[in-house]
Amino acid sequence: MITPIVLGMDIGGTNADFAFIDLEGNILYKSNVPTSDFDTPNSLVQVIRKRTNEALLAMKGEFVIRAIGIGAPNGNYYRGTIEFAPNMSWKGIIPLAEYFKMAFGVPCFLTNDANAAAIGEMMYGNAKNVNDFIIITLGTGLGSGIVANGRLVYGHDGFAGELGHVIVKEGGRQCGCGRKGCLETYASVTGIKRTVVRLLEGGQYKSELEDITFNQLSGRQISKAALNGDQLAMDAFTITGDILGKALANFVAFSSPQLIVLFGGLAQAKDLIIKPTKESMERNILKIYKSKVPIVLSGLKGNEVALLGAAALAWKEMGIEAE
Amino acid sequence: MITPIVLGMDIGGTNADFAFIDLEGNILYKSNVPTSDFDTPNSLVQVIRKRTNEALLAMKGEFVIRAIGIGAPNGNYYRGTIEFAPNMSWKGIIPLAEYFKMAFGVPCFLTNDANAAAIGEMMYGNAKNVNDFIIITLGTGLGSGIVANGRLVYGHDGFAGELGHVIVKEGGRQCGCGRKGCLETYASVTGIKRTVVRLLEGGQYKSELEDITFNQLSGRQISKAALNGDQLAMDAFTITGDILGKALANFVAFSSPQLIVLFGGLAQAKDLIIKPTKESMERNILKIYKSKVPIVLSGLKGNEVALLGAAALAWKEMGIEAE
Repeated sequence: MITPIVLGMDIGGTNADFAFIDLEGNILYKSNVPTSDFDTPNSLVQVIRKRTNEALLAMKGEFVIRAIGIGAPNGNYYRGTIEFAPNMSWKGIIPLAEYFKMAFGVPCFLTNDANAAAIGEMMYGNAKNVNDFIIITLGTGLGSGIVANGRLVYGHDGFAGELGHVIVKEGGRQCGCGRKGCLETYASVTGIKRTVVRLLEGGQYKSELEDITFNQLSGRQISKAALNGDQLAMDAFTITGDILGKALANFVAFSSPQLIVLFGGLAQAKDLIIKPTKESMERNILKIYKSKVPIVLSGLKGNEVALLGAAALAWKEMGIEAE
Repeated sequence: MITPIVLGMDIGGTNADFAFIDLEGNILYKSNVPTSDFDTPNSLVQVIRKRTNEALLAMKGEFVIRAIGIGAPNGNYYRGTIEFAPNMSWKGIIPLAEYFKMAFGVPCFLTNDANAAAIGEMMYGNAKNVNDFIIITLGTGLGSGIVANGRLVYGHDGFAGELGHVIVKEGGRQCGCGRKGCLETYASVTGIKRTVVRLLEGGQYKSELEDITFNQLSGRQISKAALNGDQLAMDAFTITGDILGKALANFVAFSSPQLIVLFGGLAQAKDLIIKPTKESMERNILKIYKSKVPIVLSGLKGNEVALLGAAALAWKEMGIEAE
């Protein structure tokens, strides 16, 4: 008997991870290539095709690829394209889904990485049977995927869910998007780093973070310092959670989700970030929503969220759902 | 031949309007009773049943009621209830859809008035064939209905779309909800009245609005003054549009709508409110959305929005759609 699988891919500016994944979310084969090695997207597609063909042969023809799912920054679901991704060497609008479809002869679906994570969370993670939820990725920036009525909210053009660019402070921190006060300038790994240096500037603390450069500073280090009782690091988490919680209170008024899921580098700080976020959200939320919206961590392993999400997208689009 | 119709109802604290409406949105019969006359919801239901029975008889049995649709403040779609509506004499949770279903022997669907307006706009107004849009009602407060993927966003509990209670100014104006700085304290008929008196307090204007009490002040009077060139009134619209436009820019980042529809008392000021709102939204919006989201007035007559919306809800829930 031949088992149907999908090819799930997480394509970023640095690496392209790809894996064979079955309907239950088992990863049967996994590999990667450095994206930046390839001058053209098509040359990347050809290498992945060659590598996956070899893998299929090694697996003795017991598996067949039914579809391809891709999560990528600035991915547009409707058009199957990566559009003007700032961290990619390929410029402009790349019709990547079309390239993969041509090379493999199977349907290919593409969306941005946060949306893929949302679909993965629905199929394999903590949002099974949840029809209304929001997933927030706290990485270098802040990404988001919104599910309403059991379906991802893409918006009319595929660009819905840019919650990192909701303005939360008028005249606030400069954002890479050209505007000021965007949520991701506060609530993200980069955001908390900026908060750390703002607190250092104040000069009221004696902190172990004083010996680390901005570029060396990581979410993990700030977490470690906070767990060691470093007041500056603890305050940085409180400030970050306070701002994120206020923003979440407003998001709840939009879609009244059953659940908010966090993942990404800063979410790995667990209670350090979840506790102040939850407290601030509850303090600022409209009465009808109070104590109704849990904030939980992703149910998927950090380095598998994107791959499982891409695979879940492919299964879902084929109309096949896990039990 | 017997023509199927629905009974559409707009039930408010003061009046209950009800009408027979066919699939094309024609109002074949319309009447109303004062809601506050009835001690219990069931006594209201019985009177409406009697009145509509008489009307059906007068129409010589050529029409049959297939379903009932209700728009009501604090209406909960999932439960068919009106819950803790502050302006109603009936307290607590009222299972109104169930009462009507029992009395008429046909399915009955209920939602809040802004959501009903959104459905009416989709079926009969300016959002035909639009799968992603937001409707904002600028009345005494600010209500909203959000449509994504062609479906109303109700959220897991039926309470989604409370955009009037998104906090736009930290420590801002006191809101009836108990919090501060909610959007509706600025962008609504009441909001612009508060802005007018704040400008009067400043004492820098000579305005025709100086002779009107707060309680007498209406959206229409502020519009009239602005059209007469009254600087205070014009500035009040600019300030209101500025705040509303910033909020809309954030809402667009959530659901990337194809269209934003305005209706209600303040929307009747047309360009006076739309122009500064649009300008502010464009100034504050993320680049990928710029110049993509028109702000338009409702395509339905003001006093028919709620009734047509309630009727559209009933048709939609029965799986019957206008051409």
